[in-house]
Amino acid sequence: MIKNQIPPIQRVLIVGGTHGNEFTGVYTIKKLQQHPNLVQRQNFETITLLANPQAFAAVRRYLDKDLNRCFRQADLQDLTRSSYEDIRAREINHLYGANGKTPVDVVVDIHSTTANMGLTVITHEHPFNLQLVAYLQSVNPLVKVYILPKSLEASSLPSICELGCTIEVGAIPQGILQADRFEETEGLVKDILNYLELYNRGEVPLFKNSFTVYSHCGTIDYPRNESGEIQAMIHPQLQFQDYQPLNPGTPMFLTFKGEAIAYEGSSTIYPVFINEAAYYEKGIAMCITQPQQIFLKKK
Amino acid sequence: MIKNQIPPIQRVLIVGGTHGNEFTGVYTIKKLQQHPNLVQRQNFETITLLANPQAFAAVRRYLDKDLNRCFRQADLQDLTRSSYEDIRAREINHLYGANGKTPVDVVVDIHSTTANMGLTVITHEHPFNLQLVAYLQSVNPLVKVYILPKSLEASSLPSICELGCTIEVGAIPQGILQADRFEETEGLVKDILNYLELYNRGEVPLFKNSFTVYSHCGTIDYPRNESGEIQAMIHPQLQFQDYQPLNPGTPMFLTFKGEAIAYEGSSTIYPVFINEAAYYEKGIAMCITQPQQIFLKKK
Repeated sequence: MIKNQIPPIQRVLIVGGTHGNEFTGVYTIKKLQQHPNLVQRQNFETITLLANPQAFAAVRRYLDKDLNRCFRQADLQDLTRSSYEDIRAREINHLYGANGKTPVDVVVDIHSTTANMGLTVITHEHPFNLQLVAYLQSVNPLVKVYILPKSLEASSLPSICELGCTIEVGAIPQGILQADRFEETEGLVKDILNYLELYNRGEVPLFKNSFTVYSHCGTIDYPRNESGEIQAMIHPQLQFQDYQPLNPGTPMFLTFKGEAIAYEGSSTIYPVFINEAAYYEKGIAMCITQPQQIFLKKK
Repeated sequence: MIKNQIPPIQRVLIVGGTHGNEFTGVYTIKKLQQHPNLVQRQNFETITLLANPQAFAAVRRYLDKDLNRCFRQADLQDLTRSSYEDIRAREINHLYGANGKTPVDVVVDIHSTTANMGLTVITHEHPFNLQLVAYLQSVNPLVKVYILPKSLEASSLPSICELGCTIEVGAIPQGILQADRFEETEGLVKDILNYLELYNRGEVPLFKNSFTVYSHCGTIDYPRNESGEIQAMIHPQLQFQDYQPLNPGTPMFLTFKGEAIAYEGSSTIYPVFINEAAYYEKGIAMCITQPQQIFLKKK
């Protein structure tokens, strides 16, 4: 039995469509809203939310700005911010944030990515979250865990509360559903709710006390010219190789002329979000991680 | 030697970015504009065009309406049409159409698709076009040929002239580049220009006189409810199976509840554009084709 450091979970928020063109999350929420019994559990309440309905209607990531970068506390309090997504972020925070109408204890935000990240769970290094993701990996060994520093998560929707995670499933193009990925995502949501139920009951099973996570170290942009235009693509040898080691001297980009550009760092890195469509505009060709062994404390 | 039924080609238009979020075409055009020697041939002029630069800047298929549905002759003459894409279509037609400033003889329009269509060339059944695509397939046996009735092509950009084709390469998500697919696309453009050069010289080589094309027969939409919301996804067994036979009784869709919906037609069909992102809004889950053997006349 794992010691409960956090009081029982009372309310859980499952979110989809924070990005309107990531259909997996949108249709998961639509399904759960039509069949609320799927998320009902005995000892906590589950709320479902389609976060950016107007972006979904427009089949775009966002209308004015990325909703998942609008949740910094200072920004939420800045009432001069009046874009659709700023207003929507305030609404969501007023409903479900710590001082909201019905504050939630855990947020699960469902995303998809064009990168080959399989079933990824993103969270920050809180003991509760680490135990949650360790459980998810013990139930499904295909689950990968990507740890972000809390400071980097501060503008994201899940930052409205301390506990929870972002689900990233890929490779899925924007604007489509892939049935196998949809079912895997749904399975992950179910496993999370099951864990919370076990946690509330004090019945979290013993599982292996060490597991591997991938910790965020930074990002790498595409080679660009003075105008900011990209000058190279992800090298075919690196495409789809998320979570695989990339060694110094190995091809990383391919210029439009067909010349390989090698990774010139001094140590092996483990890229993720390789060739994510939404990150071209953010100046990110891939995120860099290092694998790290996590040892859970048990009682 | 194949008899020349069409006078020598004088001017060829290579187009990319007709859809702003199909980066393969956009960056192919950018490259060709930076290195015009790549499209220079001795006996005809090649012009390159980024068709929808504003949609590319916005990383969207289009701003107001699909540019590749704006080229119907009646629509081009209707000056009350004033969307960005309507105006852009008129500009393109005024420049390169039959009565334009510098009319072109051949149009090649480069697209990408989220469907697994490999290297597809789409055209209508004109003897010149059929010989062109037969040549492309003889040079690269991976090339698939998809024949549209001319009436269905009438609103597309290539309809501004009789000769040419649309290139569709996939599976590629919207808004990204995939290096291997980029190079394959570039290779196809080069092969087309090489063919036109040979044609003008009267030196088109003998190649096999029969080949397989896939002729468009219709489309199938997703199952939807009264509000138009989709109720099922492409079945995992059908996903990525473009150009493969789909037999009556075989799973076609999977509902969100996990129930398979079978194809209920009476004969085998060959779907393409399976799960193309841009076709959700058009009411198309896939296009239906039938393979057809084409026999070229030789002299």
